[in-house]
Amino acid sequence: MTPATSLFSPVEADLHILADNLKQLVGNDHPILSLAAEHLFGAGGKRIRPAIVLLVSRATMSKDDITPRHRRLAEITEMIHTASLVHDDVVDESEKRRGVDTVHSLFGNRVAVLAGDFLFAQASWYLANLDNLDVVKLLSQVIMDLATGEIVQAVNSFDVDISMDTYLQKTYYKTATLFANSSKAAGILSEVSQQTAENLYEYGRNLGLAFQIVDDIFDFTSSTDTLGKPAGSDLEDGHITAPVIYALEEKQELKTLIKRKFKQAGDLEKALMLVEDSKGIQRSRDLAASKAKLAVQHIAQLPSSPTRQTLIDMADYVLSRLN
Amino acid sequence: MTPATSLFSPVEADLHILADNLKQLVGNDHPILSLAAEHLFGAGGKRIRPAIVLLVSRATMSKDDITPRHRRLAEITEMIHTASLVHDDVVDESEKRRGVDTVHSLFGNRVAVLAGDFLFAQASWYLANLDNLDVVKLLSQVIMDLATGEIVQAVNSFDVDISMDTYLQKTYYKTATLFANSSKAAGILSEVSQQTAENLYEYGRNLGLAFQIVDDIFDFTSSTDTLGKPAGSDLEDGHITAPVIYALEEKQELKTLIKRKFKQAGDLEKALMLVEDSKGIQRSRDLAASKAKLAVQHIAQLPSSPTRQTLIDMADYVLSRLN
Repeated sequence: MTPATSLFSPVEADLHILADNLKQLVGNDHPILSLAAEHLFGAGGKRIRPAIVLLVSRATMSKDDITPRHRRLAEITEMIHTASLVHDDVVDESEKRRGVDTVHSLFGNRVAVLAGDFLFAQASWYLANLDNLDVVKLLSQVIMDLATGEIVQAVNSFDVDISMDTYLQKTYYKTATLFANSSKAAGILSEVSQQTAENLYEYGRNLGLAFQIVDDIFDFTSSTDTLGKPAGSDLEDGHITAPVIYALEEKQELKTLIKRKFKQAGDLEKALMLVEDSKGIQRSRDLAASKAKLAVQHIAQLPSSPTRQTLIDMADYVLSRLN
Repeated sequence: MTPATSLFSPVEADLHILADNLKQLVGNDHPILSLAAEHLFGAGGKRIRPAIVLLVSRATMSKDDITPRHRRLAEITEMIHTASLVHDDVVDESEKRRGVDTVHSLFGNRVAVLAGDFLFAQASWYLANLDNLDVVKLLSQVIMDLATGEIVQAVNSFDVDISMDTYLQKTYYKTATLFANSSKAAGILSEVSQQTAENLYEYGRNLGLAFQIVDDIFDFTSSTDTLGKPAGSDLEDGHITAPVIYALEEKQELKTLIKRKFKQAGDLEKALMLVEDSKGIQRSRDLAASKAKLAVQHIAQLPSSPTRQTLIDMADYVLSRLN
């Protein structure tokens, strides 16, 4: 059992139901998609996003059980996330994600575009049928932000002058928006106060930022085995992340290597060494830790419960992945 | 002036506003998309879908002017349609659409997937912010049907046993759902009765079916110049449409040619001759005419007005494209 699964034990049964539902919802009618669905929603995948939705749902429903609409929201969240991954892999021409072949590499662009579109469409449909206009607005904002994030990432690639603010904005679009808006939406389905809804949004936003900053650190500190792709892959693709932005303050040579897109032999290796030799990774850890701390502060007002404790522990878990 | 534009004269000013809005909405923030937006929403394009939304809006608002929400619905309809075309071209690897280079061939798969996702996302966002849950449900059903249609089309390609019912169902998913649900949604924004809303749905559904059947006939009767792609392209891709389904009843040899996917030299040419030599095209015209007639019957109850007359003329226009 991975740390994540033991951490998720208060919603473990919920996550099993979710996995079964997702496979059924997507794969049932269309044989062409059932293989992709099995691949996408089968084993593997941390399911951190639906876990957070389910935990927030339970933490805000106090004594009552969560409703079918809370479960559906968790499923919609995972569908949107998965659809976005499937299309990202087409855009980035990725062969592997976390060591597993991508839909695009297994079944081709054609099925990957279809499968992603179908997942987005199905998510939109289930969303509309939750019958809550506020929740529809929050999640359609997420879909919009994810599309914007992919474009911003494409536009900013290899940009050595990217500011920390722009990086954090990009990270919000790419990752934190889903954590933030789905946490808030779960609260709205539990009919929490507007103040609590905003706090849940800030919890998700800061946790999502911490999560992505940690992911960006992994590109420099993890082995191919753990990462499922070679170290430095993000940097090689031109994604300028927190460790690099900090390292660029100390290492002028890094700018040259990035600007020429690592065209000369040994460029990428040298760049990785420069980042490692800088304060970039430690400063990024500190940045992630400060976001995780902010996340926890925003759920202090929730009634004490095992699920609230898990939401607090989640912040530690996100950081602990670095050890 | 094409017949379409003179037919659309009651909403010509509206369509100009729409074209300007679409270019601004999509292209403004993201330089990477502005070229694609100019290409997609610039000159060309019949804009029949938003024209119908605007005509239904005006026909159901009697003396009052249409509202900004009616206009926004027309824009959303065109965004969804365009997003779906952009992704279809990636899936089908089409180089040209109506004689114009596709986004996928001009800017690559990457921009085409991004642009389509962004358009779908933006459409969903504007949709949610129309603040009408019924309209959100209708249009999210359209997005779902379009995705289903692409999958059904992929699954049924080269299937010589496809029934007329399956063909019409596929045609509903691919084309008629957007005509049907957007007509109904325009009526709902005008606060029409439930009965009128259903009639508008049936008007759009039957008009959309007629429109697509006519489009499918064009694959056999039009020159490359008119079509923007060689005659028989759809058949070559394995799309079994009305003229072929009828022709298959008369011509056994056609089955063989399709089953072997036109692999031998001259197969496609022979198949085109067999369709031409059958009653397939005439019977398809009759089918389209019967759907167009049904469409008109469903708007008989609308109050008499110039825009209602245009909606009636639209049925003739759809068929007249064959002459």
